[in-house]
Amino acid sequence: MTKKKIKHSPKSKKNFKLKKNKAEKKDLLGIGPKIINSVVEALEEDDKIHVRKVVEGLSEYDLARLLENIDFNSRMKLVEILGDKISPEVFPELNEVVQEQIIESLNETQIVNIANELDSDEVVELLEHMDDDEQANIIKRLDPELKYQVKSSLAYPEDSAGRIMVRDFVAMPDDWTVSDAKKFLLDDKNEMPEEFYTVFLTDEKYRPTGELTLDKLLRAKATQKLSDIMDGEIVPIAVDTDQEEVAHMFREYGWMSAIVVDAKGRLVGVINIDDIVHIIHEEITEDALHLSGAEEGDVYRSVFDIFKSRSMWLLTNLFATVVASSVVAGFQDIISELAVIAVLMPIVASMGGTTGNQTLAVVVRAIATKELTSRNTWRMIVKEFLVGICNGLLFAVLMGIITYFRFPEYHIMAIVIGIAMLLNLAIASLAGILIPIVLNKFKADPAISSGVFLIAITDSGGFFIFLMLAKLFLF
Amino acid sequence: MTKKKIKHSPKSKKNFKLKKNKAEKKDLLGIGPKIINSVVEALEEDDKIHVRKVVEGLSEYDLARLLENIDFNSRMKLVEILGDKISPEVFPELNEVVQEQIIESLNETQIVNIANELDSDEVVELLEHMDDDEQANIIKRLDPELKYQVKSSLAYPEDSAGRIMVRDFVAMPDDWTVSDAKKFLLDDKNEMPEEFYTVFLTDEKYRPTGELTLDKLLRAKATQKLSDIMDGEIVPIAVDTDQEEVAHMFREYGWMSAIVVDAKGRLVGVINIDDIVHIIHEEITEDALHLSGAEEGDVYRSVFDIFKSRSMWLLTNLFATVVASSVVAGFQDIISELAVIAVLMPIVASMGGTTGNQTLAVVVRAIATKELTSRNTWRMIVKEFLVGICNGLLFAVLMGIITYFRFPEYHIMAIVIGIAMLLNLAIASLAGILIPIVLNKFKADPAISSGVFLIAITDSGGFFIFLMLAKLFLF
Repeated sequence: MTKKKIKHSPKSKKNFKLKKNKAEKKDLLGIGPKIINSVVEALEEDDKIHVRKVVEGLSEYDLARLLENIDFNSRMKLVEILGDKISPEVFPELNEVVQEQIIESLNETQIVNIANELDSDEVVELLEHMDDDEQANIIKRLDPELKYQVKSSLAYPEDSAGRIMVRDFVAMPDDWTVSDAKKFLLDDKNEMPEEFYTVFLTDEKYRPTGELTLDKLLRAKATQKLSDIMDGEIVPIAVDTDQEEVAHMFREYGWMSAIVVDAKGRLVGVINIDDIVHIIHEEITEDALHLSGAEEGDVYRSVFDIFKSRSMWLLTNLFATVVASSVVAGFQDIISELAVIAVLMPIVASMGGTTGNQTLAVVVRAIATKELTSRNTWRMIVKEFLVGICNGLLFAVLMGIITYFRFPEYHIMAIVIGIAMLLNLAIASLAGILIPIVLNKFKADPAISSGVFLIAITDSGGFFIFLMLAKLFLF
Repeated sequence: MTKKKIKHSPKSKKNFKLKKNKAEKKDLLGIGPKIINSVVEALEEDDKIHVRKVVEGLSEYDLARLLENIDFNSRMKLVEILGDKISPEVFPELNEVVQEQIIESLNETQIVNIANELDSDEVVELLEHMDDDEQANIIKRLDPELKYQVKSSLAYPEDSAGRIMVRDFVAMPDDWTVSDAKKFLLDDKNEMPEEFYTVFLTDEKYRPTGELTLDKLLRAKATQKLSDIMDGEIVPIAVDTDQEEVAHMFREYGWMSAIVVDAKGRLVGVINIDDIVHIIHEEITEDALHLSGAEEGDVYRSVFDIFKSRSMWLLTNLFATVVASSVVAGFQDIISELAVIAVLMPIVASMGGTTGNQTLAVVVRAIATKELTSRNTWRMIVKEFLVGICNGLLFAVLMGIITYFRFPEYHIMAIVIGIAMLLNLAIASLAGILIPIVLNKFKADPAISSGVFLIAITDSGGFFIFLMLAKLFLF
């Protein structure tokens, strides 16, 4: 490292926090509504002087919160008014979606100036979503060392260990003694990361051989060799490992940091647990929202952007329900004769959809956490199917009784809806587990597309079974 | 601390892991299918000798994975065969649900013997779900110091900072010098946590005044006072803070550890980031599954247990759809006359349900992450409503065109379904945001109960609007 940059670190965030905390105790997270409202009003009245005055007093953390908590148009207007007065340090503090929106509104020179003040991992985040040309133009103009670091990061696939690892860590040869290590750490000439907890040890070919936490180093005898006191049972991960896999290993092994190696097994980076917390949070949230056809960051998106992404999902749902309605269309004759059928028909379909969704949610989660493996897939299919049968029996009886008393003139209808309920719930639970498993086999994200297939099956299936049985038993 | 216990630490997990890794490279997580299958077969054949032989060679980590990956009955049988040969260290490694199942099958003396070998936080996890009598009986028989620690932990509310904090951390007076601190740390008489990264500093009344990471301590001059080099901008959290709030602060501020204080502001414990990773993971997963009426741990539960929890949810759904079907029942006369109505009716309801669920997923998440605050609630309601209107318009037109060409004999039907679609999607998106907000205001968990209210509204609403309009326009 040639120059010391202000690091976007846990520390800095906490400090911003504290300043605010003292002033405004009640609203623990982010700045208060008063400031936000005064800025929004000033923006509406085009009172640039007031806007600048208020924003001047804010820390980077607070300005980021302000930008997130106003609507898209006010946000763009604020950015325009502030121009180059927005400190580069604000950008890493921003939610991904908001960051992208603001970056899109800036010109190349502005982005280059911002990037040159940030760490390489922050710059990578900034550039990740640009198209290749734009990205290349900006990288070309970065400071030499930063350019090198950003280029190497971007060479790794998106969402891989190589993208999220940091390049500043403390490593030393494992044949050093404790006193060598302490001398190295105490020498002011050696630049250190802003904060570190572990020293990584390597052999002469720079391959990791172990790690040593600072508490062990601190308490060890000066003459001991590092290789004798280090923890040698490390599990280095390849630089192209997917970040979801990395997050999983952190959780599974209780890691504080992960050692990243290149194809030749050489130490190239370190992933720290505080970066993983965000990834775990993002990945699960994404899955949960995708199941309903929504997206993370919708809180910050404009109406038109949300409309675009959600309408695509609704379109597939429309397709599924139109298919289901075609099934109903085939039975118009019996519906005309006996309208009660149309009254009861949606119940079977709806219960099937709910049953299938329960299974789906569990299975999609189990696939993501790797709790569903080749070992227990078959067992889980049987289990979910049995649960479906049990619920099918219960609700067949319940719905049969309800129908019997509600439509006493058609006793046989109670049997029809009972059988239909049992069959559709059994099918729904099978569909709920098989659809995500099959999609996963074909490398499709089960969180995104399972729902539509499920609804197509439970709706069409529910209508068909019920209407078919009604036709057989009642006509 | 009077005795040193084997700690369930990141380290130990990693070691278990590695042993396995060497033997069986491909199956990175958990033991391989061969071992599992051989145990399952031996259990079926009641071959206790073989079971014991296989299990003997397994690490605690691997035995935990084995217990998780066999079905409920095999699990109980395995526990019975192994009896007291199961190492106490296996229990903290187990998934919460599986742990509870096994503990329930053990007698008091067995549980006491296991607990006495574990750390206080692990024992608390073990006892948390027992009823008060059983819990008291076991606590009575614990070793004196452990008893004291467990009792104090359990005195705090479930899911509070007091429950998840650890009591072994390194704290010292802030008026010490760096050389005092190093002397203290190097003295073998002072027992230290198995691993630590930070030293916490307090005033004479044991109130936290700052923290000092080991790298800073290591690189500081011997004569410097700790209070001069410490990071004094700490944000101590109260011992009764909810763990979800704690997790949120970790994410928001990028903390590595949190300082926990009692009502008098005295340092009583520390929460480390590696424990928070699990909590973040659990909380989001729970929310996501609850939205569909499923539960975390369903992968490990028996068919009957899953059936019980899911059928409750289906029952509420049944209620919602029966209400919706009563709406349809009121229009049997027009359905008999024009069966096409029954064909198109489910489409309006289904599109409403999907629209509402998209909004619901985003809002429930935004409430949990505190992205939805009093400041932006109103703005978000307007935004979601506008998105609903946009989608309503789009699908009104689309469905109008489809209907026009599919049922050319009833042109007016295209207009009826178009208006119904627009109205129901607008209502659905409003319901999707208002239901969780209202539930949250009344302190109900929006993830658990929002879905049923939503379906009741979108189904009944969808049917009513469409059937009413059909009656007005077509008859």
